Amino acid sequence: MLTPQNYNQDIVELSVSAWFYRNRAVAGFDNPARSLYVSIRELMENSLDACEDAQVLPDVTVLLKREEAISGNDMLSQGPETFELVVKDNGTGIPRDNIPLLLGKMLTGTKFTHKQSRGTFGLGGSLALLYGQVTTQRPIEIVTGQKGLDYGHRIKMRLDIENNTPIIVEEEQIPKSEDEHGTMVSFWLQGDWIRSKRRIIDYFVHTAIIVPYASLFFETPDDEVIKYERVIKVIPKPSLESKPHPKGIDVEMLKSMIVSTQKRSMKSFLTGSFQRVGKTIAEGFLSYVGIEPDRSPESIEQEELVNMMNGMEKFSKFLPPSAKTLSPVGTDVLQAGVQRLAPEFVIFRQRAPSVYEGHPFIIETGVAYGGQLTPGVNVIRFANRIPLLYDERSDVSYRVVRDLNLKNYGLRQEDPLTFMMHICSTKIPYKTIGKEYIADIDAVRKEIELGFKDCLRELSKKLRSRNRAKVHRKRETRLSTYYKFTAKTLSAATGREVSIDRLLGSRGGSSQ
Amino acid sequence: MLTPQNYNQDIVELSVSAWFYRNRAVAGFDNPARSLYVSIRELMENSLDACEDAQVLPDVTVLLKREEAISGNDMLSQGPETFELVVKDNGTGIPRDNIPLLLGKMLTGTKFTHKQSRGTFGLGGSLALLYGQVTTQRPIEIVTGQKGLDYGHRIKMRLDIENNTPIIVEEEQIPKSEDEHGTMVSFWLQGDWIRSKRRIIDYFVHTAIIVPYASLFFETPDDEVIKYERVIKVIPKPSLESKPHPKGIDVEMLKSMIVSTQKRSMKSFLTGSFQRVGKTIAEGFLSYVGIEPDRSPESIEQEELVNMMNGMEKFSKFLPPSAKTLSPVGTDVLQAGVQRLAPEFVIFRQRAPSVYEGHPFIIETGVAYGGQLTPGVNVIRFANRIPLLYDERSDVSYRVVRDLNLKNYGLRQEDPLTFMMHICSTKIPYKTIGKEYIADIDAVRKEIELGFKDCLRELSKKLRSRNRAKVHRKRETRLSTYYKFTAKTLSAATGREVSIDRLLGSRGGSSQ
Repeated sequence: MLTPQNYNQDIVELSVSAWFYRNRAVAGFDNPARSLYVSIRELMENSLDACEDAQVLPDVTVLLKREEAISGNDMLSQGPETFELVVKDNGTGIPRDNIPLLLGKMLTGTKFTHKQSRGTFGLGGSLALLYGQVTTQRPIEIVTGQKGLDYGHRIKMRLDIENNTPIIVEEEQIPKSEDEHGTMVSFWLQGDWIRSKRRIIDYFVHTAIIVPYASLFFETPDDEVIKYERVIKVIPKPSLESKPHPKGIDVEMLKSMIVSTQKRSMKSFLTGSFQRVGKTIAEGFLSYVGIEPDRSPESIEQEELVNMMNGMEKFSKFLPPSAKTLSPVGTDVLQAGVQRLAPEFVIFRQRAPSVYEGHPFIIETGVAYGGQLTPGVNVIRFANRIPLLYDERSDVSYRVVRDLNLKNYGLRQEDPLTFMMHICSTKIPYKTIGKEYIADIDAVRKEIELGFKDCLRELSKKLRSRNRAKVHRKRETRLSTYYKFTAKTLSAATGREVSIDRLLGSRGGSSQ
Repeated sequence: MLTPQNYNQDIVELSVSAWFYRNRAVAGFDNPARSLYVSIRELMENSLDACEDAQVLPDVTVLLKREEAISGNDMLSQGPETFELVVKDNGTGIPRDNIPLLLGKMLTGTKFTHKQSRGTFGLGGSLALLYGQVTTQRPIEIVTGQKGLDYGHRIKMRLDIENNTPIIVEEEQIPKSEDEHGTMVSFWLQGDWIRSKRRIIDYFVHTAIIVPYASLFFETPDDEVIKYERVIKVIPKPSLESKPHPKGIDVEMLKSMIVSTQKRSMKSFLTGSFQRVGKTIAEGFLSYVGIEPDRSPESIEQEELVNMMNGMEKFSKFLPPSAKTLSPVGTDVLQAGVQRLAPEFVIFRQRAPSVYEGHPFIIETGVAYGGQLTPGVNVIRFANRIPLLYDERSDVSYRVVRDLNLKNYGLRQEDPLTFMMHICSTKIPYKTIGKEYIADIDAVRKEIELGFKDCLRELSKKLRSRNRAKVHRKRETRLSTYYKFTAKTLSAATGREVSIDRLLGSRGGSSQ
């Protein structure tokens, strides 16, 4: 009993895949129901990203087939079952050599650049495939082709979990026309459809709102088809890669940027490696930290590096990060998307770009009212054009809505009100790897609050003028009834026909 | 604009440390305030684990010094500052060769065994050190020694983030007595003390409740000292390593267990590698999946493996996972700990072991009432003897408390009531890498609910009998006043002294 155990036992280093697989619950894979939802979601997000990168209107097809159904037994059963999941898009396609890296390896990413995209942690898709392999032991199939090539690739692979590397089992070139492009991923996985159905369908409904320029097709294991045709033919401008901002990096990153730069002087290193750093700012900064502009990056010592880093935090003349690389959805597209909910009124606002911890972001808010909305306050959340469905109460936008005083806008909690929030950023402040909710960061909270309040003011105006119009119509109806009665009585009394128009005299026509 | 970007750009594989550093917010390192809290917590948890492994009463000292204070400037300042953090314990100490692995590398762990411990993900400590190095660029110092050796080690190291490996900068053997043992870690980091102070102090308060057999000493940057002397000299029995349960593993793990086994037959592989699998059960299972007991593990084919795995899920004769390896705190220790809150009543219950997804767990619940507790309902949460302070509303125990009907127990929301919950398990179902809260798993929720209800019934009984006693005392006081008055009146009327005792006759003494 007295033997020390923890620190003396055999300790092994786990591979990244083994570690993530062991701890997959933190990435949303906690049970067969949620794992099925997350798998569909991660692959659809890859597909939508690929289509927008190609700047084509997305066509995404998702097929989820029960193994039992395939073998002829389609009884409803409880608990985990085996499914085949196929996700197909008309996106860029993947170059042959990137297939294993992108789908068969975890923790891949770009080295020094940032870009707004649905994927964030560089592991969602690979983790879904790994989960599928582990639960069913079947290989993964990928068919992909790029525009301008007259062939594509079909690859079957397995993931080697101990070494975080894919093993290609089968491979062939397949002929195709030069115009065709896109990717299809098929694999088997365990899941619990009965318990995840509602979330998965919600996911499609919400995706159809935020990506109304996509056609989505989903065949469920119950042989139902959920289909959303695109309602608008506008693709938001592509998001662009951006260099880091001096306020958004750390010493380790600065160090490896200096090590790998091709530039010969610190001045050209700064202007070439960071966003919004021109010659004047670079010179100003270098003199601020006491480094000669002509010094070669190789000659920078550890102490100077730390000094530079501290200087970057304090130097006040850097311009704020550029939001040009961001791609918000746009109020027109949002308007088109929200029509799927058939509300009576909708107001959207796009806020001006703002910044947190060196990362630019843009908030888009919307408030929908009445029509076919259900009574009560609802919050629909999006981040880089993906719907967030879980952990609503922890999300900053939920908290903002909770603290709004609806009475100020002539609204009540029971009214049919839906709040919508979209944040786009090169770095979404997610609180979990499962991308469930957004952190409560002051700058973000403030933008959401101002956006919602602006929408509410506008809604309140519209409701007031609608109500005024209603009162007006009511009064007219009442007057018109009165006039009709008067006319009838006069007619009866005088024996002559009296028209309402004559009675109304100069107001004539307003009763029509 | 039309160039596909995402799938064609240069893709690099990030090292584990680089990935975690980039995404450190998901492990709780979101801002300088929280990072300071998480760093202290992770290192204290390592220390407490090391002491319990050594089965000694823990003495843990934490010093947090402001850099400015050291250089003579101790003005209160806002925002991030640089601190030196020193955490010292009297635990097992770390063997020389394990130091770099345990503190300088991420994702280390044991291969096939499970053990209840505070650390869960094998990265908290290393991530804190990495965070410190990145924010201050200073090396980390470790001094450690084991019992029975007349020397220890002092090591200075840096972490190589690109390769997830430590680099030793300085090293020396230091003489010590054979009885001394323990570890001291010192490093520098950026933090925001002003904004994290309250949480860090809460962390000490709660730790002192759940580990009342530890002496904790904390010197704050404001030169205040927070000191908790141990109030009980009982160490909970050590938690033991356990082999996996057949229902808690997956095919990949089964495969690598079979590959690395020394056993010659499948029967001895099963009995040797899994918990609670004896010869009879092993034979039963092998015949269930159609594998000869004498088959060599090497000869097992992929298909048989999948078949075995499916069999493991369905085979009904495995015994439930053993809870013998678990180490709950115990109601005596909990009683001692909670006295720090000075309540009027406390009730603790330990539930019988239960199981989720192949992992055993034990729930301990407590309800404290009155005394120095603040009015209103509070929930204090612990998991494997660490306090959980963040994201309370997402935690399963908070939800259970919210849904309790206090009226049934004669209690109100405004009463001074504190609910305490401790879960111990070989695998705590955390929802985040930051170990903030426990997932809402049916089996876990049920145990917590039954535990709390049991405590409430007992509390309700105690309160009733206290109230009955109060009423009783009140009635006696009233009677005694009446008797005194009667005695006085009689004395005055008769001119003789009449004692109360005589008036009370046979009831004499009950008014005392």
